[in-house]
Amino acid sequence: MSDSRKHVVIVGGGFGGLWATRALASADVRITLIDRRNHHLFQPLLYQVATAGLSAPDIAAPLRHILRKQANAEVRLGEVVALDAGARQVRLADGEAIGYDYLLLASGATHAYFGHDEWAPNAPGLKTLDDALLIRRRVLLAFERAEAAQSEAERAAWLHFAVVGGGPTGVELAGTLAEIARHTLRREFRRIDPAQAKVRLIEAGPRVLASFPESLSAKASAQLQRLGVEVVTGTPVGAIDGEGYRLGEDRIAARTVLWAAGVAASPLGALLDAPRDRAGRVQVQPDLSVPGHPEIFVAGDLASLKQANGQPVPGVAPAAKQMGSYVARAIRARMRGKPTTPFAYVDYGNLATIGRRAAVVDLRGLRFSGFLAWAFWLAAHVFFLIGFRNRLIVMLNWSWAYFTYQRHARIIFGGKPDPS
Amino acid sequence: MSDSRKHVVIVGGGFGGLWATRALASADVRITLIDRRNHHLFQPLLYQVATAGLSAPDIAAPLRHILRKQANAEVRLGEVVALDAGARQVRLADGEAIGYDYLLLASGATHAYFGHDEWAPNAPGLKTLDDALLIRRRVLLAFERAEAAQSEAERAAWLHFAVVGGGPTGVELAGTLAEIARHTLRREFRRIDPAQAKVRLIEAGPRVLASFPESLSAKASAQLQRLGVEVVTGTPVGAIDGEGYRLGEDRIAARTVLWAAGVAASPLGALLDAPRDRAGRVQVQPDLSVPGHPEIFVAGDLASLKQANGQPVPGVAPAAKQMGSYVARAIRARMRGKPTTPFAYVDYGNLATIGRRAAVVDLRGLRFSGFLAWAFWLAAHVFFLIGFRNRLIVMLNWSWAYFTYQRHARIIFGGKPDPS
Repeated sequence: MSDSRKHVVIVGGGFGGLWATRALASADVRITLIDRRNHHLFQPLLYQVATAGLSAPDIAAPLRHILRKQANAEVRLGEVVALDAGARQVRLADGEAIGYDYLLLASGATHAYFGHDEWAPNAPGLKTLDDALLIRRRVLLAFERAEAAQSEAERAAWLHFAVVGGGPTGVELAGTLAEIARHTLRREFRRIDPAQAKVRLIEAGPRVLASFPESLSAKASAQLQRLGVEVVTGTPVGAIDGEGYRLGEDRIAARTVLWAAGVAASPLGALLDAPRDRAGRVQVQPDLSVPGHPEIFVAGDLASLKQANGQPVPGVAPAAKQMGSYVARAIRARMRGKPTTPFAYVDYGNLATIGRRAAVVDLRGLRFSGFLAWAFWLAAHVFFLIGFRNRLIVMLNWSWAYFTYQRHARIIFGGKPDPS
Repeated sequence: MSDSRKHVVIVGGGFGGLWATRALASADVRITLIDRRNHHLFQPLLYQVATAGLSAPDIAAPLRHILRKQANAEVRLGEVVALDAGARQVRLADGEAIGYDYLLLASGATHAYFGHDEWAPNAPGLKTLDDALLIRRRVLLAFERAEAAQSEAERAAWLHFAVVGGGPTGVELAGTLAEIARHTLRREFRRIDPAQAKVRLIEAGPRVLASFPESLSAKASAQLQRLGVEVVTGTPVGAIDGEGYRLGEDRIAARTVLWAAGVAASPLGALLDAPRDRAGRVQVQPDLSVPGHPEIFVAGDLASLKQANGQPVPGVAPAAKQMGSYVARAIRARMRGKPTTPFAYVDYGNLATIGRRAAVVDLRGLRFSGFLAWAFWLAAHVFFLIGFRNRLIVMLNWSWAYFTYQRHARIIFGGKPDPS
């Protein structure tokens, strides 16, 4: 109790929070890492769980296990519901108050429906393992319902898969859904031909993968179409319900709509008395601290910061890791009374996968696509996946999937066995 | 539509139903296999999912995928809710009626609470993947709650794990829980010592593993105690609620009670106009058909039949497989108008695992226990697990778990993040 070390409280065990925790391993502080979930999630591969290529534990590792050897860190499963910046303490949903000397908020982002929260039940998004398992269940059940359908119209509605949002997640989901329909399920049904399923990727803006150069957007679009995805750009989606959606003037019957369009920052940002941008991200100082509170930092998707070139720091895993490590350095500097240099994002490149043998890569101007890009993406993601065991299993699963077109996690559980 | 082949409807894709389906691959029939779930489950390893050693897709395979090359079989995801034996048709929950020439009911069993259904929410049983994931969540959360507990009494209640029922499932669960507490979680908590957890196996009868010879029951009991399990026999459990349970005269504070005591046959047996035993199993003829209905068969855990030696055929996977294959032969014989010889169960032996390097084996009188029995059990189970890929992954997971004491599926998802 009479611990003289400074107490660093870190909220969120994603890339930002976990990298900060690790970077403080040798610092003379005690750390409490608080997360609502017991695991760190390798979010870049979440779409593989949603599409039955990997099982949930393949891409997640218990935070306690990751940090078991870091003696100055403890992990607390809990949800932060209040923050008293004056008294320097956070309060958890179970009532416990936890004081801090330094606080890092790194609770990330969730998906948003641009003011149309009523679409949520019929257009699930993809941020957590629960989301991924829900999408997996819906997609697999849709083919089952199509097989049992009593009319052609019903069958077509079950075999229409719409993915809303042409960013990396939408592109991954659409490309993989097309592969499932055309290859994975081949020969398994007797009344339907899964290859007849329509997979449509809908982007309101002029092109998919808008964060990439135009040439790579065009390549991605072509690769998607080769995989069997219909790409629709420049048209917003409206009026999503359990029966279908509206596209421009048309009403489309579709039982499966997936949402990969909007992002909103974690509500924890609102606990701070600090300016936020339209997505709810906290507008941080150049050292990632909150105006007026040099002891409070924000990192990862919850932080909003402009780079020197005027562009915002992107909401990607490498940026969150860099921010987490930076905050650890900033805390050490504060403790020694030293100044900090502003955070500078190092952009090593941008890559997105599309499907089997299809991806796009932009490494500081070195641009390539297709098989080579896909192999590069694969190697990078397996390399960065936490834990040797997970890396081995994921490689094995993927080799298996590649050569057999099979996806091992095609198991429906949870939910009602026989929804509507 | 004008298919002249006889239609065989098989309800349940477990060992009985799946083995019958496969054994009819070359018969001149068309087969509809109906299951509420999309997968065959390798139930003998379900406790490994419940205790975070395997992930759900490791022990399950989509029925469609297993049967994709069997042209005379189709798979229907659905729940049978009615049977009209006169009209020879079953009706599904979604309203579809399916006619049959031959019917096999193989919908298995579920757990039962001996008239105390009110215990169910606080003492989950283990029959499905959903059950296993619920138990996994509760066990992992219990250690988290203990870590966050504000009083010694609260902490002790979260660290008390009671397993009710000393059969194979109860023994497996208790042995593995003790291993998790003593080894897997070592060094991961800062406020509790997981090794202080109490794991108690409670059997109302005089000994654990009552279906084994007494000498092996004693060995199993000793091995359990060596692993850290407290074995209580001859005392029934009563009054289970969210706070604890009653054991004889004592009231025990315990937040985690698991149920491995009672079995009740699937409610589908009640749709037949046939005698049933106390557990709801259908008392079948020597050829596994239903009295008065030579075209209706029952196999697996739903069937009740005495062997020639007066003992009932046990509710184990090998018996279900043998029954399924037998029914396929009986249907072929019926179609040719030939008589059938009665079903005879071939007992190859009985084995039960207890934990790390601990098991008991009884092979027709050849009895052994300890490490050798454990290795034998491991080899047999990995061998019988469906699908090459699953076998490979399970072996890999187990080698990993054996050498590191780790369990890769320690991921909490689903449910509320922060239940009381």
